[in-house]
Amino acid sequence: MSQKLNTPKGTRDFSSLELKKREYLLNVLKDCFKSFNFQEIQTPSFENLTTLIGKYGDDEDNLMFKILSSGDKIKKADIDAFKNNKLSKFSNSLSDKALRYDLTVPLSRFISQNLNDISFPFKRFQTQLVWRAERPQRGRYREFLQCDVDIIGESNILHELECIKVYDSVFNRLGLPKVDLRINNRQILEGVSKLMKLETVTEIASVLDKTDKIGIDGVMKELKDRNLSDDSINLLKSLLDIKGTNQEKIENLRTIFDSNNIFLDGVDLLDEIIDTSQKFNLNNLNIKVDLSLARGLSYYTGTIIEVSSPKEYEIGSIGGGGRYDDLVQKNNPKLSGFGISFGFDRIFMILDELRLFPNELNSSKSFLFLNFGLELDSILSYLDKLREKNITCELYPSNVKIKKQLDYANQKGIDYVVIIGDEEVKSNIFKLKNMKSGSQSSIDISNLLSEIESIS
Amino acid sequence: MSQKLNTPKGTRDFSSLELKKREYLLNVLKDCFKSFNFQEIQTPSFENLTTLIGKYGDDEDNLMFKILSSGDKIKKADIDAFKNNKLSKFSNSLSDKALRYDLTVPLSRFISQNLNDISFPFKRFQTQLVWRAERPQRGRYREFLQCDVDIIGESNILHELECIKVYDSVFNRLGLPKVDLRINNRQILEGVSKLMKLETVTEIASVLDKTDKIGIDGVMKELKDRNLSDDSINLLKSLLDIKGTNQEKIENLRTIFDSNNIFLDGVDLLDEIIDTSQKFNLNNLNIKVDLSLARGLSYYTGTIIEVSSPKEYEIGSIGGGGRYDDLVQKNNPKLSGFGISFGFDRIFMILDELRLFPNELNSSKSFLFLNFGLELDSILSYLDKLREKNITCELYPSNVKIKKQLDYANQKGIDYVVIIGDEEVKSNIFKLKNMKSGSQSSIDISNLLSEIESIS
Repeated sequence: MSQKLNTPKGTRDFSSLELKKREYLLNVLKDCFKSFNFQEIQTPSFENLTTLIGKYGDDEDNLMFKILSSGDKIKKADIDAFKNNKLSKFSNSLSDKALRYDLTVPLSRFISQNLNDISFPFKRFQTQLVWRAERPQRGRYREFLQCDVDIIGESNILHELECIKVYDSVFNRLGLPKVDLRINNRQILEGVSKLMKLETVTEIASVLDKTDKIGIDGVMKELKDRNLSDDSINLLKSLLDIKGTNQEKIENLRTIFDSNNIFLDGVDLLDEIIDTSQKFNLNNLNIKVDLSLARGLSYYTGTIIEVSSPKEYEIGSIGGGGRYDDLVQKNNPKLSGFGISFGFDRIFMILDELRLFPNELNSSKSFLFLNFGLELDSILSYLDKLREKNITCELYPSNVKIKKQLDYANQKGIDYVVIIGDEEVKSNIFKLKNMKSGSQSSIDISNLLSEIESIS
Repeated sequence: MSQKLNTPKGTRDFSSLELKKREYLLNVLKDCFKSFNFQEIQTPSFENLTTLIGKYGDDEDNLMFKILSSGDKIKKADIDAFKNNKLSKFSNSLSDKALRYDLTVPLSRFISQNLNDISFPFKRFQTQLVWRAERPQRGRYREFLQCDVDIIGESNILHELECIKVYDSVFNRLGLPKVDLRINNRQILEGVSKLMKLETVTEIASVLDKTDKIGIDGVMKELKDRNLSDDSINLLKSLLDIKGTNQEKIENLRTIFDSNNIFLDGVDLLDEIIDTSQKFNLNNLNIKVDLSLARGLSYYTGTIIEVSSPKEYEIGSIGGGGRYDDLVQKNNPKLSGFGISFGFDRIFMILDELRLFPNELNSSKSFLFLNFGLELDSILSYLDKLREKNITCELYPSNVKIKKQLDYANQKGIDYVVIIGDEEVKSNIFKLKNMKSGSQSSIDISNLLSEIESIS
């Protein structure tokens, strides 16, 4: 009975103060998305497994929180699978739903379900929780808020650029320092892997994508351990070593790929995005071509982007996105998607660390009427009138010692206490005590509402 | 592959228009809660089963969405239990977490985990999703938003009255017609059941609580089927038949209970609440003593209340609450809780049906710049400046036939299209077409920003 109760691993409670800050950040994001005329949708917290499974990759499928079948459905348990240690099959026999793993697959389901009511290009935003059974780390939780902006329609680089501009506008509104937005695309990665004599880029994607953590030498070492040929490894090293401007990197790729049109299409696309981006007046982003960027290759089919945290407070990437054709095309041929995510929790940490949350978050004042056991009528009518103006106020609920009432006010962070006891009633005044400064003033009772309103 | 994808049973997607209305309702609730100085908290979507199980009753425990253990934990499956058809035991061996069933038990866990940081009375509000594996019905879903206000501290009728006043204020702000708030308490129900020679009121609670649906005669019939004595049934009937004012009903109970102090305490409590409520200036509530109100008796230990929907649109109760000592006392002796819930979806349906959503929800205008394939620079800079003022605007992303672009505008509900083609550029004007009225005007291009700002 006296067992200590806790939040489940990797999850959090939020206090009122944290929620005010989260609400501020969320509102900046939403206001910005709306100004671009993205339209909000919300989808259920869980989806049918048929909607989710097989969209992300096997590792990701295992990180989903599945919902246990209830009632008689649990009789479908595949006991043979359990006995043969086929745990994944056993698990699938016990569940037909799972919590959202991201917001993109639910979006794809939403589009397929509402195809006739949607006008394309469909620009939607969605800010909802997602759940992943990963090992919790600093800034990474099992339940977290995902903030996504996607454009579904024909493949068009203006969609890439509009989303990049959304990043820029949000960071600008938040007052963040300038950050790097790294960009690459799958065709280029496929080209590189072909030159390396690999079947597909997914063979080296997970290693390559660690370049900014373990460095080029670290990547080389890991690839050696995988028995890749020295020729392949050296070729990759020479590509990753290329320094210079985006334009220089692009020209270099053109030389290397000169005989292969498909890979060159990838280079052209990158070139066009970089070139057009200059018209978009980006204030908070440095766009950087980065051949080592190789994330999300189980679903990204074209452009890939990732936003780094500012140098002033480095905590890994704070956003990322890409073009995905297959996720929507499976249900809706001809539709292509491009979308980006904001790393809400990490951006929150940066704002906190760099003191970028506005001071006004706590500017509205709160008032506590002390309880002296007098008749309730007049105090209740004051409370009514103040609350109608959305002024935060309350009456201490019992006539206990004043010290206890003041302790309550202090602990709760009340700004002012209102004192109306016998003495005050007799002399037609009330006293107002500023709990932060300790100063106290006596004011004519007829001015109570106007006085409180003026300082609230 | 071409299988039709759907939302899971009992869950919903929300469109942008529905979300605007939901946001309005949620903001009215939250603003009101804040004006009473309730403090917001949020808790994780799932809790450990040890926190949840045994708090609501067996039926409710079976309606929880449990989360299937992942990884190796699933090896703990109790196959013997499965073979012996002990499905509940089998199910519990496969799960150690479940989705929130309500917001009260998580609150109790929150308090026990943060006891030293909380100042009592702790007034908290929480508006988050909850999940129940019930059969979906009109206005009842498997995933729905719960909006709760609770006061935890000493037992004090001012807490009951403050929550009743919160109902009143919210309904007033929403412009709802006056509704009935029915009130009863557990002590009185225990008294009645004792007079009926029953062990405890829970024996008849579920039948009694159906009185407003099946009528007194219906209740009598069901109790007869359960083989209750005629004496018992007639006694109950005589109590339920009592008409008159709250005061008359209370006097009647006093007469009946005259020799039992515990039951009389219940009557006194009710009397005091009714009496004190008159000082609270309730505009939107009729408080009605109702002996048939017998909900939530697996956790309510004192006062019980329920709010009916308005006569103008009857869809059952739109809120309810009560005093619960055991939920918090198990972990925190001496603390008592009183709390209320708002039926968000039903209140939403009433606002929709009675046309109480404000017209201004859609008052901000949206603008689409048609795409004539001209240079992007100047249009992008217009978009930037408009978006900085949170004006909703966008550029059609490709230079396709104008009819297709206008179709997009119409389908998306765009208010105005902005026309800047070759001709307009030459004559230094732009055209603004009102998509609702069809009217079109030509305006000097130097006034573009001010003109759009003035009508946005």
